[in-house]
Amino acid sequence: MAPDRAEENGLPAEFGFIARVFRPLAGDGALDLRDDAAVFTPPAGRQLVVAADAMVEGVHFLPDDPSHTIGRKLLRCNLSDLAAMDATPLGYLLTVSMPPARDEAWFAGFAAGLAQDQQHFAITLLGGDTTATSGPLVLSLTILGHVAPGMALRRNTAREGDGLWVTGTIGDGAMGLLARQGQVLDPDGFLASRYQLPCPRLGLELGGVASAGMDVSDGLVQDLGHMARESGVGAIIEAPWVPLSPAVRALGPTWLTQCLTGGDDYELLLAVPPAREASLLAHAARVDVAVTRIGQIVPGSGVQVRDEAGRDIKLARRGWSHVQP
Amino acid sequence: MAPDRAEENGLPAEFGFIARVFRPLAGDGALDLRDDAAVFTPPAGRQLVVAADAMVEGVHFLPDDPSHTIGRKLLRCNLSDLAAMDATPLGYLLTVSMPPARDEAWFAGFAAGLAQDQQHFAITLLGGDTTATSGPLVLSLTILGHVAPGMALRRNTAREGDGLWVTGTIGDGAMGLLARQGQVLDPDGFLASRYQLPCPRLGLELGGVASAGMDVSDGLVQDLGHMARESGVGAIIEAPWVPLSPAVRALGPTWLTQCLTGGDDYELLLAVPPAREASLLAHAARVDVAVTRIGQIVPGSGVQVRDEAGRDIKLARRGWSHVQP
Repeated sequence: MAPDRAEENGLPAEFGFIARVFRPLAGDGALDLRDDAAVFTPPAGRQLVVAADAMVEGVHFLPDDPSHTIGRKLLRCNLSDLAAMDATPLGYLLTVSMPPARDEAWFAGFAAGLAQDQQHFAITLLGGDTTATSGPLVLSLTILGHVAPGMALRRNTAREGDGLWVTGTIGDGAMGLLARQGQVLDPDGFLASRYQLPCPRLGLELGGVASAGMDVSDGLVQDLGHMARESGVGAIIEAPWVPLSPAVRALGPTWLTQCLTGGDDYELLLAVPPAREASLLAHAARVDVAVTRIGQIVPGSGVQVRDEAGRDIKLARRGWSHVQP
Repeated sequence: MAPDRAEENGLPAEFGFIARVFRPLAGDGALDLRDDAAVFTPPAGRQLVVAADAMVEGVHFLPDDPSHTIGRKLLRCNLSDLAAMDATPLGYLLTVSMPPARDEAWFAGFAAGLAQDQQHFAITLLGGDTTATSGPLVLSLTILGHVAPGMALRRNTAREGDGLWVTGTIGDGAMGLLARQGQVLDPDGFLASRYQLPCPRLGLELGGVASAGMDVSDGLVQDLGHMARESGVGAIIEAPWVPLSPAVRALGPTWLTQCLTGGDDYELLLAVPPAREASLLAHAARVDVAVTRIGQIVPGSGVQVRDEAGRDIKLARRGWSHVQP
C-alpha cells in the first residue's frame, strides 16, 4: 500500500498507520508491499480471470456503514464477478482514496474486515496504494482468479429451452438498503447485513453444466435482459417462483417489483439445459447453495415477467437504468 | 467499464458515452467489457507481475491538466513499476470515479490519450468500472505484466561495491510541477510535459545485470534511502554526476536539491556491480535509454549526498516524507 509515499499522496506523515494495518494482509508474492510490484507464478494450465470495481461513499455504501464491512463488500462484489465466470480466486489489489476524517480506528476496522474475508475466501492482498482525497472515500479493487481453459461461464451463450435459475434469494440487498434508510422494517438486521455483505457464490463449478451465467448486481430483470439480448434470445420470469427470503416475504407483496428490479443481489443467474438440471442441483448441494428455477429462455427477445395467472407484470423500471452503449 | 451500471453507479443515463469511449480500448480477453470479468491465458513459463496505483485530481495531477494526458500519466506510472521489476506489460484495468462536471469531450480526450499509449506500449484495457463521485476525479489503475521466473529486479538486493545508476534525467518532473504552477520558467514546455507524461523505462532486461532496481517516484534521495535500508547497506550520491536535462540546467544551480528530492521522476535507480557495467551500457544502448553513474553502494547505512569537493550536502528534506511503517 505504498507506505513510503504518504506525503507524496497528500497524506500527512502520521498516516503511517495505514502501512501498519495493510502490511499483514499481504500474501506470498506481495513482497510485503515494500517493492514496486508483486510477483507470483500463475497456476499451471489455467486461464486468468480479472475484474475491477470501484465503490464510492454515498453511492455504493453509506457513510455510517461499519468500516469492517466496507472493504469486504467491495471484495465480495468482485468475488461475485469471479463466481459469475466460474473462476477460483487468487488474490486482489486495492487502492484507497481517503478523506481527512478517517482515523486509525476506522482503518483498523477496515483492515480487520478484509483479514476476515481473506481467510474465508483463501486469498491475500497483492498490492495497492493509499492516497488522500478531499472528496468522499473511494475504494477500487482488482480481483484475480483462474479457470480451466475455455470453461469460463459467459453471459452471451444462453439457448432457447434453457431453464433460468438463480442462487440464494432475490431482493435482500435492495430491501437492505431501504432498511438502512428506515423505509422498511428489518427487526433482526438480516436485510441490512445482506446489503452490507453479499455472499459471492463461488465454487459451483458450473462450466460444464450451465449454458450461460452472470451475477445479478443491477436488478434481476435488467441483468436477465443483458443475458437475453447478448445471447439473441428472449426470457420469461415467473414472478411467483422467484425465491425470497423470509425477511422479504414478511414485508408483503407490495415490494415484489422492487425486489425484481433492485440492485445489490450478487446472486448468480444461470441458464441451464433441462438435461443438466440434476447436475446443477448436485453441484449446488455440494457447496450448500440453494438454486431455484425462476423461468426459461424462449425464442425472440426481451424479458417478460408473469404473475401467478400468467399475466404480464408491467414494471415502471427494469432495474438500475440500462445505458445502451 | 460496466456500461450497464451507469445509474447504479450514480451516473445519469446520458453517460452512456463512457461505454462508447472505453469499449474500443478493450483487448483480447476483455470480452468487449461486456461480461463480468476478462479471461486470458498467461504467457507460458513466466511469472506474473502486478501493481496498482491511484491518482486524485489536485493531488497527483492538476485540474486543468489536459484530459488526454491524465490517464496516460497513471498508466505510465504503473508501467514504471513494471519497468522497475524488469517486467513486460500485458494489460491493465482502470476504474474512474468522476465528478459531475466532466463532459463527453473530456472523456473522449481521456480515452484518446489512453488509446495512443496502448498502441505505444502494446497493451490493452482488460476491464474496469466507472462511478460517480461528488469529490475530485479519482483514477485507479492495475497493471499486469510478466517476467522470467526468478528474474524480477528487487530493491533489497543492492550490494557493497555496486555502482549506482539512473536512467534519463532527474528533476524534470519536480521542476515541471513548479513550471505548471508558474514558479519556474519552461519556455518550450519540456518540463511540464515530463511532469504530465513520464517515460517508463521498459525493455532494459536488466534481470541478470543489475543487483537491485526500483523506480524513482518520490525523490531520488528518499528512494535510494529505501533501497539502502532494505538492502542493509549505505549509499553515496555524487551530486555533480546526477544527470540533469538542459531545461533543468537552464534554471540554475539553486534548484539542484529540489531535483534530488522532488517526486515524479519515474526513472530507474539501479545498483550494478562494476563487472557488469559494460553489459548495462549495452542493454541501455539497445533501447536508446541514457544511463548515468551517480554514486555507489558502500558499507554502513543511510544516504550521503556530496558536492564537487566531496563535502556533504545537507538536505532539509530527503524527498516526499518517508513514513516509517
